[in-house]
Amino acid sequence: MKDEAYAVHGFRASAVCAGLKKDGGLDLALIYSDKEAVGAGVFTRNRVKAAPVLVSQEHIQQGLIRAIVANSGNANACTGDKGLMDTRKTAALVAQALGVRPETVVVASTGVIGLPMDMDKVNKAIPQLVEHLSPKGIPEAAKAIMTTDTFPKTSARTGRASGKTYKVVGIAKGAGMIMPDMATMLCFMFTDLEVDRDTLFESLSWAVDRTFNRITVDGDTSTNDMVVIMANGMAGNGPLTPSEKEGFRHVLEEVAGDLARMIVQDGEGATKLVQVCVRGALDKESALQAARTVANSLLVKTAFYGNDPNWGRIMAALGRSRIDMEERSIDIWIDDVQIVSGGQGRGKDAEERAAKVMEKENYRLTIDLNQGDHEDSVWTCDLSHDYVRINAEYRT
Amino acid sequence: MKDEAYAVHGFRASAVCAGLKKDGGLDLALIYSDKEAVGAGVFTRNRVKAAPVLVSQEHIQQGLIRAIVANSGNANACTGDKGLMDTRKTAALVAQALGVRPETVVVASTGVIGLPMDMDKVNKAIPQLVEHLSPKGIPEAAKAIMTTDTFPKTSARTGRASGKTYKVVGIAKGAGMIMPDMATMLCFMFTDLEVDRDTLFESLSWAVDRTFNRITVDGDTSTNDMVVIMANGMAGNGPLTPSEKEGFRHVLEEVAGDLARMIVQDGEGATKLVQVCVRGALDKESALQAARTVANSLLVKTAFYGNDPNWGRIMAALGRSRIDMEERSIDIWIDDVQIVSGGQGRGKDAEERAAKVMEKENYRLTIDLNQGDHEDSVWTCDLSHDYVRINAEYRT
Repeated sequence: MKDEAYAVHGFRASAVCAGLKKDGGLDLALIYSDKEAVGAGVFTRNRVKAAPVLVSQEHIQQGLIRAIVANSGNANACTGDKGLMDTRKTAALVAQALGVRPETVVVASTGVIGLPMDMDKVNKAIPQLVEHLSPKGIPEAAKAIMTTDTFPKTSARTGRASGKTYKVVGIAKGAGMIMPDMATMLCFMFTDLEVDRDTLFESLSWAVDRTFNRITVDGDTSTNDMVVIMANGMAGNGPLTPSEKEGFRHVLEEVAGDLARMIVQDGEGATKLVQVCVRGALDKESALQAARTVANSLLVKTAFYGNDPNWGRIMAALGRSRIDMEERSIDIWIDDVQIVSGGQGRGKDAEERAAKVMEKENYRLTIDLNQGDHEDSVWTCDLSHDYVRINAEYRT
Repeated sequence: MKDEAYAVHGFRASAVCAGLKKDGGLDLALIYSDKEAVGAGVFTRNRVKAAPVLVSQEHIQQGLIRAIVANSGNANACTGDKGLMDTRKTAALVAQALGVRPETVVVASTGVIGLPMDMDKVNKAIPQLVEHLSPKGIPEAAKAIMTTDTFPKTSARTGRASGKTYKVVGIAKGAGMIMPDMATMLCFMFTDLEVDRDTLFESLSWAVDRTFNRITVDGDTSTNDMVVIMANGMAGNGPLTPSEKEGFRHVLEEVAGDLARMIVQDGEGATKLVQVCVRGALDKESALQAARTVANSLLVKTAFYGNDPNWGRIMAALGRSRIDMEERSIDIWIDDVQIVSGGQGRGKDAEERAAKVMEKENYRLTIDLNQGDHEDSVWTCDLSHDYVRINAEYRT
């Protein structure tokens, strides 16, 4: 899609090289709404929260947001009082340059933990950032928040309310440190829908739970994760009917789902995107827990990498997932090739056919517990040599 | 040590190539006690239990054990009724060849899951196995239970009771699939101490909890894990005094500790053995949970591999460990080099010194939560390219 495809009425964005990233790439992004926007956010549940998470939670609490400023190269985490001061200073500098109140500025950071922010660089870059604001700038902003990402992540969808078309555009970053019970990365979404704050927050939480909370790369979670949405009401719709609210939730789910799958696809060193579905569970929690245990198992993930339908590792992961299960009831498929029936392998021929399917970049692993009517699924990736290389060498 | 060092009064062992392993190495082991021995065992808590686990639990239940027969190359897991029948048949064949009751034979298997046992090969190998029994055979048995292990694991220690010296000898296998809340591998221990069954079981559980349950390679747990001990009473000691019982527990802990550390050291692709100690915790459970979360973090383990004192990843792992913690109270050391003080980094110089320490094969990571008086620790290894290679290629 062209850059215009990611434009949303009333939003402008820009990105610059502030010098925070070692490689000299884009590392500071600004997204600005011409009108005060309703804001909502979901933040990391890690007990160690970076300064920008703490400050942005406060700012979103008060409800109205004008801008998001986000940097890569430095997470501003584990930086104590100086970190908090630097975050507040960043919000103040951006607010001053834009002529808005500091509490309406969300600050986000991603990168190395424990490094003091180079505020001189941030300070110098802000005028440039404001100057470059453009309705076509959102894809550039997506580039500036990348760290180990290999491609920028953007998605745009539209919906209808009171006869008007509205748009939801999202950008995200995240490759490693993605784990299934958290906000898990940076994601910013922008919409011109007019929507009240409670509906916005509920819709965001619902969409995040079904998308970002259903992906896993390595089971680790970050100190800096946040998903923030701004709604500036410029689509001109009236109050939302219940079915329009539901429609909005689903549009958010589509955008968040696109971005979440891109994150797994871009998992550090990943070569495959695999959906792990568990069905026939006694309850939804068990289905999710089983799916996560399988999706996080290093032995399963290395088997994905090796195109090996090693169902024994899947059975072993199910067995330690602490759900109530019966070994002899379990059926397992790779796409539509059944490799386990009643807890036992279906033989060489089935495994050979499954191995063929596993050569694809994208397939589904289905596990039927044959106990009840509940199901859930998570997206995961394989574990490759490159995961180790990227993470052993990240800081050096 | 010479093979004699691993001899225990009244025990004989042997190992043969039965053809169960693809590489044609030793793959079937037998350990036999001339006298009926008291037996105790700890078994996998995985819900998917291999046939030999189910059968051996039954046999140990009745208290007296004459022999252990163990194979590598095939786990006999997820093999349904045929798997159970094959295990019972193996016990019966060994019992017949030795002239003992089948219920006194423990059967253990390790290897690929979901493969039917080739009972012809087992049947043919048993006479040879019995014929080769020798007091010096224990180290050979240790070789026959290896799978992805790169070296056999044996340990021998002595203790004193009623003026007599007794011995405890242990053998173990296990490289991948080692996780910190389970029996986690095959381990067999032999002692000539005379000891009642309850004391034997309590001492074993105590020692396993402090050793095998404190190691982690990849967070996965097997369907086949067991630790079994046989005590044949041939040391000639009398009833144990409380302090002799305590002494025995500690001798078991030493043997199990030796074997557990060897397993981590031999973790698939591992190049480092790291002890993760958490102290200053509000309670022992929190200390253990924090230590396990750090020790299992892929980001921390790849940083170990890269000799990178990336304390931000350690902080992030602590933050998601679900323990009660204060970011600003945390101190972290690599051996005696402090890299974090009050939740913040101590700078480049400290990190450079820590990176030097991390070049060693063996060091300690200490985390002080500065909250209370409790501590615990686990042993872990780094995550290297070879982990991925070994596990992506295991079956192919």
